[in-house]
Amino acid sequence: MRNNIELLQKELTSAADCAIITSDINRRYLTGMKSSAGTVLVFADAAYLIIDFRYIEKAKATATDCEVILENSLYNQINELVAKHNAKTACIETQSVTYSQFVNMKEKLSAELSDTSWLSEKLAQLRSIKTIDELEKIKSAQKIAEQSFDEVLGFIKEGRTEREIALFLDFEMQKRGSQGVSFETITLSGKNTSMPHGVPGNREVRSGDFVLMDFGAVYDGYHSDMTRTVAVGNVSDEMRKVYDTVLSAQLRAISAAKAGIVGKDLDKVARDVITNAGYGDAFGHSLGHSVGLEIHEVPNASPRYEKELSEGVVVTVEPGIYLPEKFGVRIEDMIFITKDGCENLTSTDKNLIIL
Amino acid sequence: MRNNIELLQKELTSAADCAIITSDINRRYLTGMKSSAGTVLVFADAAYLIIDFRYIEKAKATATDCEVILENSLYNQINELVAKHNAKTACIETQSVTYSQFVNMKEKLSAELSDTSWLSEKLAQLRSIKTIDELEKIKSAQKIAEQSFDEVLGFIKEGRTEREIALFLDFEMQKRGSQGVSFETITLSGKNTSMPHGVPGNREVRSGDFVLMDFGAVYDGYHSDMTRTVAVGNVSDEMRKVYDTVLSAQLRAISAAKAGIVGKDLDKVARDVITNAGYGDAFGHSLGHSVGLEIHEVPNASPRYEKELSEGVVVTVEPGIYLPEKFGVRIEDMIFITKDGCENLTSTDKNLIIL
Repeated sequence: MRNNIELLQKELTSAADCAIITSDINRRYLTGMKSSAGTVLVFADAAYLIIDFRYIEKAKATATDCEVILENSLYNQINELVAKHNAKTACIETQSVTYSQFVNMKEKLSAELSDTSWLSEKLAQLRSIKTIDELEKIKSAQKIAEQSFDEVLGFIKEGRTEREIALFLDFEMQKRGSQGVSFETITLSGKNTSMPHGVPGNREVRSGDFVLMDFGAVYDGYHSDMTRTVAVGNVSDEMRKVYDTVLSAQLRAISAAKAGIVGKDLDKVARDVITNAGYGDAFGHSLGHSVGLEIHEVPNASPRYEKELSEGVVVTVEPGIYLPEKFGVRIEDMIFITKDGCENLTSTDKNLIIL
Repeated sequence: MRNNIELLQKELTSAADCAIITSDINRRYLTGMKSSAGTVLVFADAAYLIIDFRYIEKAKATATDCEVILENSLYNQINELVAKHNAKTACIETQSVTYSQFVNMKEKLSAELSDTSWLSEKLAQLRSIKTIDELEKIKSAQKIAEQSFDEVLGFIKEGRTEREIALFLDFEMQKRGSQGVSFETITLSGKNTSMPHGVPGNREVRSGDFVLMDFGAVYDGYHSDMTRTVAVGNVSDEMRKVYDTVLSAQLRAISAAKAGIVGKDLDKVARDVITNAGYGDAFGHSLGHSVGLEIHEVPNASPRYEKELSEGVVVTVEPGIYLPEKFGVRIEDMIFITKDGCENLTSTDKNLIIL
């Protein structure tokens, strides 16, 4: 198992003498311990998890790479450790700490607070490179989602409402062990499919509809994300053309993905296919985002993202074409970026399924 | 329908010339518009919702008591309105704005930023007094939860796991129109019931168990919250005694609840009953919290809460007794505080149910 605290320690001294981590996600990333409270304190050569009585037993049994301390007077405890390790400066997660919390910390901490976003950005960057262990959890979540998708195909028929389909998928995923769902499941039908972020409603599926499903499972904290668009009954020539265009764009992007490609360049590979087919204005969102302990992580594959995708990144590839008042198509896989290409974590077929 | 923006405007000038609201919940509270982005700008005599193209059509159709503006260059748009209304100072939600956002706002806004928590606290206080319309939504959510509870009683039997029971409840609530669930449903059995915030696992229900269920539905954004503890098979004398003690404590607190009672005093009414029965150390949490657009709102009924509960507050009454390695009991209703007492929003029976 990778020592995430050590990874942070290696670069910490460039920013501050210690780091104070208070967000649930990053606390979990560093210590492996899931909780709704607690503070991780990292020095160059030591690390502590200060946590209250509700979690102390579990933390002592499971938290990794740090000393676990029972919280009784948080800021006094932090200040004692700061003095012990002779630390003068501290960095915090400015992108998740609220302004009120910041003011409170500034008042009570003996170390001088750095107010840069170094720590938030560094942790996001570390989290972007998945270990084998993390990858296995994402694969487990994805497997749950795929099995549930197989089941929903037998459930979709004329007369089913979007909400019923969403509920069916959510239930199937949780039955298979998903911890809740990755995000609010999107199941849209007919002309509603033209809204990239539509909310499932009471519209009933009719013959001639596309049904678009964007959903994911959660396994041991790690998320999955996939989208499939299937047809019910007749498929018009325009529907077929749009579907094929989205699929081509998606396949082209997957072929182009490898370590070192810049986010916006990967986006462009798919966008060019769609633009060349005459649908450039109908692809109004980014190609993809990274996935892990959160459903939206960095790096992104978006038109404005200038950084590279490194080996070990798990990112979605999800082009779409949305024709208002008509229909929309989105096809989404998750891929794992490797040195020479990528591993597709999604095995569900992408040929147009007609129910 | 109450004009929530007007309520804020009435007190705004004591704090600043304008208020900038960016949190999803408070934006929804003020404008009625649900979205994951957007900025509400409130002056003493005008209010605006600046929102991006994804939401603009819906906002124009549904947002109340404010002028809706398409977002294109947010800070320039805010600064123009600030100039137009001759505002010199602005307050923000310091309890939800991150430090990074604060720094960004400070740099880009022409008005001087107040850094007190006035706005966060004022909005929480306004939200604590429910209108009839809000109360109806909470009642609708509660009705969904109660119907689902009636169904789960037929599902619980020896051999069912805690997770299966949670999933059943969640599915029943969503089938009846709940938007997701109020919070992660708690369903515990046997000695697991002694953990107030335990997570449902694979333990199978056995004869002689208590089964504790804490759950809620969401209707049009408003939450419900209830807990019932039922028995399966035999009930020991100690189980019966603890159940009766918790129920007495709960009934006593409900009888004492009325506008003007201080949060800690209401808590004490229930706590005294439990303490007098010899279980004072086994009631380790607060008596209750308010409920609304969020599952945890203020005011609270807790040992340290010094403020009054006003007419119009919706608060939970949920005493419990937890005996480690043995069992626990919690009974929770939601009540609506009135001038002379309260209306109990929970109609599910509280006599011990033995399955």
